[in-house]
Amino acid sequence: MEELLQQILQECRPYTGQGALASYIPELARQDPDRLGIAMFHKDGNMVEAGDSRRCFTIQSVMKPLLLLLALQDNGRETVRAHVGVEATGKPFDAINVADNALLAKHLNPMVNAGAILMCQLVGGETYDQRFARLLGFIRRLAANEKIDLDEEVYHSEKATGSKNRALAYLLKAHGLIRGDVEELLDCYFRACSIRVSAADLARIGCVLACHGQLPDGQRLFPAAYGRFVNANLMTCGMYDGSGDFAIRVGVPAKSGVGGGIMAVVPGRMGVGLFGPALDEKGNSLAGIRALELLSARLDLSVF
Amino acid sequence: MEELLQQILQECRPYTGQGALASYIPELARQDPDRLGIAMFHKDGNMVEAGDSRRCFTIQSVMKPLLLLLALQDNGRETVRAHVGVEATGKPFDAINVADNALLAKHLNPMVNAGAILMCQLVGGETYDQRFARLLGFIRRLAANEKIDLDEEVYHSEKATGSKNRALAYLLKAHGLIRGDVEELLDCYFRACSIRVSAADLARIGCVLACHGQLPDGQRLFPAAYGRFVNANLMTCGMYDGSGDFAIRVGVPAKSGVGGGIMAVVPGRMGVGLFGPALDEKGNSLAGIRALELLSARLDLSVF
Amino acid sequence: MEELLQQILQECRPYTGQGALASYIPELARQDPDRLGIAMFHKDGNMVEAGDSRRCFTIQSVMKPLLLLLALQDNGRETVRAHVGVEATGKPFDAINVADNALLAKHLNPMVNAGAILMCQLVGGETYDQRFARLLGFIRRLAANEKIDLDEEVYHSEKATGSKNRALAYLLKAHGLIRGDVEELLDCYFRACSIRVSAADLARIGCVLACHGQLPDGQRLFPAAYGRFVNANLMTCGMYDGSGDFAIRVGVPAKSGVGGGIMAVVPGRMGVGLFGPALDEKGNSLAGIRALELLSARLDLSVF
Amino acid sequence: MEELLQQILQECRPYTGQGALASYIPELARQDPDRLGIAMFHKDGNMVEAGDSRRCFTIQSVMKPLLLLLALQDNGRETVRAHVGVEATGKPFDAINVADNALLAKHLNPMVNAGAILMCQLVGGETYDQRFARLLGFIRRLAANEKIDLDEEVYHSEKATGSKNRALAYLLKAHGLIRGDVEELLDCYFRACSIRVSAADLARIGCVLACHGQLPDGQRLFPAAYGRFVNANLMTCGMYDGSGDFAIRVGVPAKSGVGGGIMAVVPGRMGVGLFGPALDEKGNSLAGIRALELLSARLDLSVF
Repeated sequence: MEELLQQILQECRPYTGQGALASYIPELARQDPDRLGIAMFHKDGNMVEAGDSRRCFTIQSVMKPLLLLLALQDNGRETVRAHVGVEATGKPFDAINVADNALLAKHLNPMVNAGAILMCQLVGGETYDQRFARLLGFIRRLAANEKIDLDEEVYHSEKATGSKNRALAYLLKAHGLIRGDVEELLDCYFRACSIRVSAADLARIGCVLACHGQLPDGQRLFPAAYGRFVNANLMTCGMYDGSGDFAIRVGVPAKSGVGGGIMAVVPGRMGVGLFGPALDEKGNSLAGIRALELLSARLDLSVF
Repeated sequence: MEELLQQILQECRPYTGQGALASYIPELARQDPDRLGIAMFHKDGNMVEAGDSRRCFTIQSVMKPLLLLLALQDNGRETVRAHVGVEATGKPFDAINVADNALLAKHLNPMVNAGAILMCQLVGGETYDQRFARLLGFIRRLAANEKIDLDEEVYHSEKATGSKNRALAYLLKAHGLIRGDVEELLDCYFRACSIRVSAADLARIGCVLACHGQLPDGQRLFPAAYGRFVNANLMTCGMYDGSGDFAIRVGVPAKSGVGGGIMAVVPGRMGVGLFGPALDEKGNSLAGIRALELLSARLDLSVF
Repeated sequence: MEELLQQILQECRPYTGQGALASYIPELARQDPDRLGIAMFHKDGNMVEAGDSRRCFTIQSVMKPLLLLLALQDNGRETVRAHVGVEATGKPFDAINVADNALLAKHLNPMVNAGAILMCQLVGGETYDQRFARLLGFIRRLAANEKIDLDEEVYHSEKATGSKNRALAYLLKAHGLIRGDVEELLDCYFRACSIRVSAADLARIGCVLACHGQLPDGQRLFPAAYGRFVNANLMTCGMYDGSGDFAIRVGVPAKSGVGGGIMAVVPGRMGVGLFGPALDEKGNSLAGIRALELLSARLDLSVF
Repeated sequence: MEELLQQILQECRPYTGQGALASYIPELARQDPDRLGIAMFHKDGNMVEAGDSRRCFTIQSVMKPLLLLLALQDNGRETVRAHVGVEATGKPFDAINVADNALLAKHLNPMVNAGAILMCQLVGGETYDQRFARLLGFIRRLAANEKIDLDEEVYHSEKATGSKNRALAYLLKAHGLIRGDVEELLDCYFRACSIRVSAADLARIGCVLACHGQLPDGQRLFPAAYGRFVNANLMTCGMYDGSGDFAIRVGVPAKSGVGGGIMAVVPGRMGVGLFGPALDEKGNSLAGIRALELLSARLDLSVF
């Protein structure tokens, strides 16, 4: 199996040269575009890896399904659905998706920035420090990795340059969708996006989702229904406005981030983590998608 | 199993009163809103039915995946992808989805009217009469039902009142996406949407898609890759701007039509056909979705 | 005064090389891009001309204010306002200006294609032949030129290629804004746009508008209030999404057409006709606007 | 003449009951909706008034043309045009007017919030305190009223609740249209909108614009070309998405604010100031527009 992963990385390496690093903050622009790593974590607890699978990068938007998951756990399905829609927006990830003057909860999606920002305020906790601590603890348990932590540099850069996200948050506030202080909420969101993980971590987290909340040792981290909710949301919206294409080419729920990570969920079977920081024009790891396409074909992973 | 279906219909019957019949043509507005039927066709060739499962209605948009399938067969994947995108539009089914002045192939989707109209011209045949004959033959084989035929009244009504589709088609023409005569193409589309089927027919067709083209007798109707393509497209876009919600609640590829039909595909297992003409505000059968939600929960159908 | 016009033409001639001929039909694409003509018709009945001021071209969108004027005369202000709005759309002239699924009269503007098509059905007459005859008679009286007539070739080309306008008209029909047959209405619109005029004709027509309906001989062609209505509509929307810029640079009501014509109205003083078929990217005569800017500065024409 | 104004107020008083006070901050919601005042300032220096013409209210968006004027004076026409467009947006005053992901200077308009916020940074001054002082001095000179000052309460309320404007400003920042600190810029904008004026002040300021910068004593406050620029911009965009209707009904450049004020400019003749805090659904003083319509008809003020 490791051989298969090695071979796939070999085949996909040429694609790293066709993408571009995220450039809106220096920390991302400085990454090595040729990095490529893959990890598969089976539900029986077995991990297979190849390439830069242990190299750390910031989780960025791969945090979105975890924010949704925690929001579901802390509030239940009905409350979450009252705050956010689940339909594809047909727009880029950071689009100001406002139909003229009305911005309603149903126009949002937890896999798109505006909706994800909103999820932060549904995470349990009295202060945003508590909420972030809860998030960090959650991701550490999911990945079974206590070393996962914040990348302070990226966090400060994100916070200093995040005008588009700030605009989105104030828009949510203007339409009554945010309670309390906008800057504190944004601070929590910027920190959440700046957590450092590896492809191996993402594979393990993806596997917990694939098993609907159950760890290999039988312990349950969240109700199965919430896992299915998140997986379904990932399938229709996880790869931004490339989700339709990804469903056809790969056929499993997945989420990408501009840090170069992709977390893929093969329901009932395994999680797959990818790292390849050169992105396509939609903000998804170019070689990462190609690797998943090959993996899906070879191991028949598509749910369709 | 038939008992389960009966029970589900019983539970869902109250929902028929909450929807509304399509009213844009008299033939649809005249339907009995309380009709409700369901049929399941297993890959082993076994059919189970309940309620109005043999009652005929017009296929309407459930024709869209079949148009796509035939376009794939007659042109291959690359050509189809050059003519139509696969991303959710984030808009209602008949939206004029034009980003200012540019309308490109990638803005279209074969599960939304504009894209489906376009698929008609990719169906093999020298004339539109030949193309329609090919379509009709295709659907008869898929459903193993030679009695499937055109509803002449609905067809003439659709043709006489189809200004929105006409507008869409001329818009496609104006942007160079349609070759040849617009009215002939539209005529073929209106006829395709006016084919009469039953829930049992849709269950059988759905099963062929679930088996990626293979009939219970082992015969192959189309390449497996095209089946996966269509199923993936159905998952992300088959229920219009209700697809995200449907993925969460039901979790299988499906397509609805304003005639009241829904065809659901349970990959590797079965097809399910529904009939319930009272629609929700997005144009999907209200009781039909509820019935599928219950069925999915009871039989664990979700792919997530 | 003729010297002034000659001088202005000389200064503006270099601009003819920077524009592009309309190319959607061969008749327009075949024009000589270097043509340039100007005519001023004073309220005292005095005409001054220079360059290609007597050369004929198709009136195209300069017909729009005349359609509005006739609609006002035949129906009164209230009825016209019930059919069409008067706000700038912020979009190109042929935009599909649909806010999601609702298209209301107030979204239209008589100076933009959709609204102008609608005006055709408000022109008095039992058949569209009668309506067109009425239009032609009206423009002949306004220009005091019985030779003004239809350009059959342009009309047939417009009709054969007018998919965008056809799309707009069917969209209006789909939203209940058009009664009766769409093709007949469009035919009338295509004929109206294909009437041949010269810059001298436009100057004379503009002068009637400048005098709010009164001819130099004192005869009144329409109520003064309708003239002010049209002039105000021209100021805010007559030059498409270049109207704001034109108001600043020239400062008078005006309407352009893709045939290369511009009709400018200097309220209380004169009409100005321009001909220069090389267009800017918004569809307005490039050298024509520049000539009007110079003329306005030299003769202090701006109403501001 | 005073009699005429009294009579017009009498006729328009019933309209005050049909509008609604701005309610987004308590200071505006507390106003007396029945107030109505009008003032005319002739170029010969003569002022005529009626009703609540000396009652103070916050200038709000009537500040926009003055911001534009000062930006023109401090930077020249070319620089201003490089920062802001002049076309009508076809949208409400606070719309997020973003065509998908691109927000360009040409999409903005100085009479709409986003463009007006941008104008603040073009006002000369090293700090925003200096810029605001310059603005306040400018308006005092225009109105010949040294008592004009900031309404501290309104300013603090605006600043505390201005999420929509904050969203707009961060969006401008995200698209590289704002240099420096967003909060400082916004603070200046909120202060500018919170300056207290009366209808008499607006009449006087309008008259300076009507005389293209010249005071009754012959002194020139700004170049004539800038006055024409502002007047033209007011005509096409000054009354938000009601500008087209206002041009037809009244026919002069004007600007309204949610505080209830309207400043109208009758080029070459006079300025008119209105106060009536009950607004129509577009945010314009309802009785104020009606009063201007009557005044324009009686005194033949329309430029058309």
